[in-house]
Amino acid sequence: MKAILLLVYLTWSVLLSAQQLDVDADALFIRKIHQQALSDGRCYQWLSDLCRVAPGRLAGSPAAAAAVDYTRFVLDTLKLDSVWLQPCTVSHWVRGDKEQARIVNSRKMGSVDMRALALGNSVGTGPGGLTAEVVEVHSLDAVDSLGRKGVEGKIVFFNRPMDPAIVNTFAAYGGAVDQRGAGAARAGKYGAVGVLVRSMTQAIDTVPHTGAMSYAPGVKPIPAMAISTADAELLSALLSEEPVRVFMRSTCTMLPDQITHNVIGEIRGSEHPDEIILVGGHLDSWDVGGGAHDDGAGCVHAMDVLRILKQVGYRPKRTIRCVLFANEENGLAGGRTYARISNENKEYHLAAIESDRGGFTPRGFNAEADESVFTEKFRKLSTWLPLLEPYGLYLRKGGSGADISPLRSQKGLLVGFEPDTQRYFDFHHTRNDNIDAVNKRELELGAAAIATLVYLIDKYGL
Amino acid sequence: MKAILLLVYLTWSVLLSAQQLDVDADALFIRKIHQQALSDGRCYQWLSDLCRVAPGRLAGSPAAAAAVDYTRFVLDTLKLDSVWLQPCTVSHWVRGDKEQARIVNSRKMGSVDMRALALGNSVGTGPGGLTAEVVEVHSLDAVDSLGRKGVEGKIVFFNRPMDPAIVNTFAAYGGAVDQRGAGAARAGKYGAVGVLVRSMTQAIDTVPHTGAMSYAPGVKPIPAMAISTADAELLSALLSEEPVRVFMRSTCTMLPDQITHNVIGEIRGSEHPDEIILVGGHLDSWDVGGGAHDDGAGCVHAMDVLRILKQVGYRPKRTIRCVLFANEENGLAGGRTYARISNENKEYHLAAIESDRGGFTPRGFNAEADESVFTEKFRKLSTWLPLLEPYGLYLRKGGSGADISPLRSQKGLLVGFEPDTQRYFDFHHTRNDNIDAVNKRELELGAAAIATLVYLIDKYGL
Repeated sequence: MKAILLLVYLTWSVLLSAQQLDVDADALFIRKIHQQALSDGRCYQWLSDLCRVAPGRLAGSPAAAAAVDYTRFVLDTLKLDSVWLQPCTVSHWVRGDKEQARIVNSRKMGSVDMRALALGNSVGTGPGGLTAEVVEVHSLDAVDSLGRKGVEGKIVFFNRPMDPAIVNTFAAYGGAVDQRGAGAARAGKYGAVGVLVRSMTQAIDTVPHTGAMSYAPGVKPIPAMAISTADAELLSALLSEEPVRVFMRSTCTMLPDQITHNVIGEIRGSEHPDEIILVGGHLDSWDVGGGAHDDGAGCVHAMDVLRILKQVGYRPKRTIRCVLFANEENGLAGGRTYARISNENKEYHLAAIESDRGGFTPRGFNAEADESVFTEKFRKLSTWLPLLEPYGLYLRKGGSGADISPLRSQKGLLVGFEPDTQRYFDFHHTRNDNIDAVNKRELELGAAAIATLVYLIDKYGL
Repeated sequence: MKAILLLVYLTWSVLLSAQQLDVDADALFIRKIHQQALSDGRCYQWLSDLCRVAPGRLAGSPAAAAAVDYTRFVLDTLKLDSVWLQPCTVSHWVRGDKEQARIVNSRKMGSVDMRALALGNSVGTGPGGLTAEVVEVHSLDAVDSLGRKGVEGKIVFFNRPMDPAIVNTFAAYGGAVDQRGAGAARAGKYGAVGVLVRSMTQAIDTVPHTGAMSYAPGVKPIPAMAISTADAELLSALLSEEPVRVFMRSTCTMLPDQITHNVIGEIRGSEHPDEIILVGGHLDSWDVGGGAHDDGAGCVHAMDVLRILKQVGYRPKRTIRCVLFANEENGLAGGRTYARISNENKEYHLAAIESDRGGFTPRGFNAEADESVFTEKFRKLSTWLPLLEPYGLYLRKGGSGADISPLRSQKGLLVGFEPDTQRYFDFHHTRNDNIDAVNKRELELGAAAIATLVYLIDKYGL
């Protein structure tokens, strides 16, 4: 009996110490990842280059093609096991020439040019523009209430703010963005001639924010523009005093579809090459600004994760694949094409991690999956929390990323990298989303955080 | 028996629902605080003003006096129950005229001007400067090892970096700052003629960082300067190739002590006026830059907390006192004077909260106290965590703030506000610590977070 107890004790001790040893080794390795990312990181330089050689890289544009060339070049320098381009067909919207949204001949203010940008996918007014009286609303439903009588022939002005008191900026965005996405469809239904939308930001400033919108089948498309929040405040104040007419002009239009590419590179797994761990961002951006935070940051994060793991001498058991998706902003063709081909090839993504919330200080990761597998995978993930917490990282249930969402049916874990996003909506979809809006250390910390998670998933599986 | 059980059940239900109701009411009230801070906050405007009217407000300087005037003026506009100035005697160090640290006549590089700033409290070289050979070390102990033979007549160059791989930037700072604080005393002991210190930042850039240093009794004071990390890298690389001589020039000096003031305003408690909840920052800054993050941010946080609570109509049970401390940077006379007078007046600070880590996105609070009371107070504090977590705030045991630390003997809770600090050491003690380094929303979130904690402490006690 004593002998058995001793045996149990010894086995238990060995198991315990083995586990203990692994945690220590993991902690050391994660420190090594951070040392590499923060002392010798490349992502900031790459992002600087990407913003310079391919600003405004909306899907289908020459800049998007330049971005494909540049990132393929970078991946080639990393001596991965393979790098390839995956063609996909994307819509091709262009902004056209000078845009205007001008308050005309108001009694109180005379004429005032507002800071405006056409919304992505919008039709233009044509070169002659249009002038109409403005009616302000705070929701899509309010348009229904006004009906044809209140809306026909008018410009509908959607002015519900992103609530500044909501600390989670993406929750505030989610609470307002229906106006941008569906405002023109709703207003067009009742005969409105145009739409102005308050820019999607919690700040009051002079910077207009573009972004995707779409039309409804059977409803005549009408032109839609975003105006800066400062201009939205002014227009609203003026409307409370007198009727206001606005002149809108835009020559944006949808051109024929184009072929562009998802850019892909991978390190092939030594033991389980068929289990893929994807890390990615989207290569396209809006046509204004450098697309630094949205989503150049996610692309250079993904590329730097592979570089860091190679640089510290890690040989993955599973296949680590970097995917830079085309066309997240106005169609998601990149993500859909990637998932379709992956399914055709009977691939299995054990995990897919997307970085698409900017290059700010990491806070943690959100995870989701098909409900048949989520509980078990999240439980496994959570066992690593003690290794992540020293780096200020949490693990939560929540949405992952648009580009990887079509992979859900493969029943792997879908993970969204979550940085601090308090500054994100200062830059999102604007001319100011440039490299000078990015802090080098904050960006590098993101690459280190994602590399850490990739390392743990690769080592322990899910 | 049944009646008794029913009574117990009813009492229990009432207590439970009362508590439940309170949590709901608190959540609503905290939301109101955030709404006020983020929709109608004043702290950014005040910080902008403070940096403009009183940049470089080192204790004893005319700018420090201007900062006292400005903040007193702001507090007066808030219609508090009382506002007053508390005189305190502070040291008065001045930088003097043009500073230089130049590599002279190196074989490889010729002469190179390095970006340099004299360290605070340092003696100067005098207008003629001094030239000597440089010896590089990575620790104070290394100076002991070199001894008089290795150091005498030389400039000792302390070049141990703040470890970039340490995610907690203040931990990295703590791991390197002994070189700045005590390097000159150690090198002077062995006859060195001057000291150069690698700037305290994890970034490699061209910005020198000043900061406090002190001398040891009985050791001849020698001049000490910080050089930018880019210059430190260059100097080190050059030293690995050839002996290097550096010309140092500084005319900084210590002038006679001055009188300045702690600036104080309070809302008197309606039920327990003798229980003080202090919220503060330090009004002095280094003599270069605007002192925006260090610690103008903490000052405007403290002022805005009182304004927010008044604005949302909160009538505190306890006394809420805003204190802007003089002279944190090079002497702590403000904090020491405040605590001495408070003790003389037999005051009791139930809690003191300091904001002195910049105006970035809030992460949480660190708390400490005399060990006889800490456990119970921290337990009480922790019961509010469910109200703080929705705002991304943690509560941890840890250091609070330099200015409030002399209040420890009153056995209240000492709390340090903890924002994200990844960008802090880009600006800390530099010419770049100006309003444009501060994000309005991030700053306002700090005021809201601190106001939330003050509200809970006031309502429930500790």
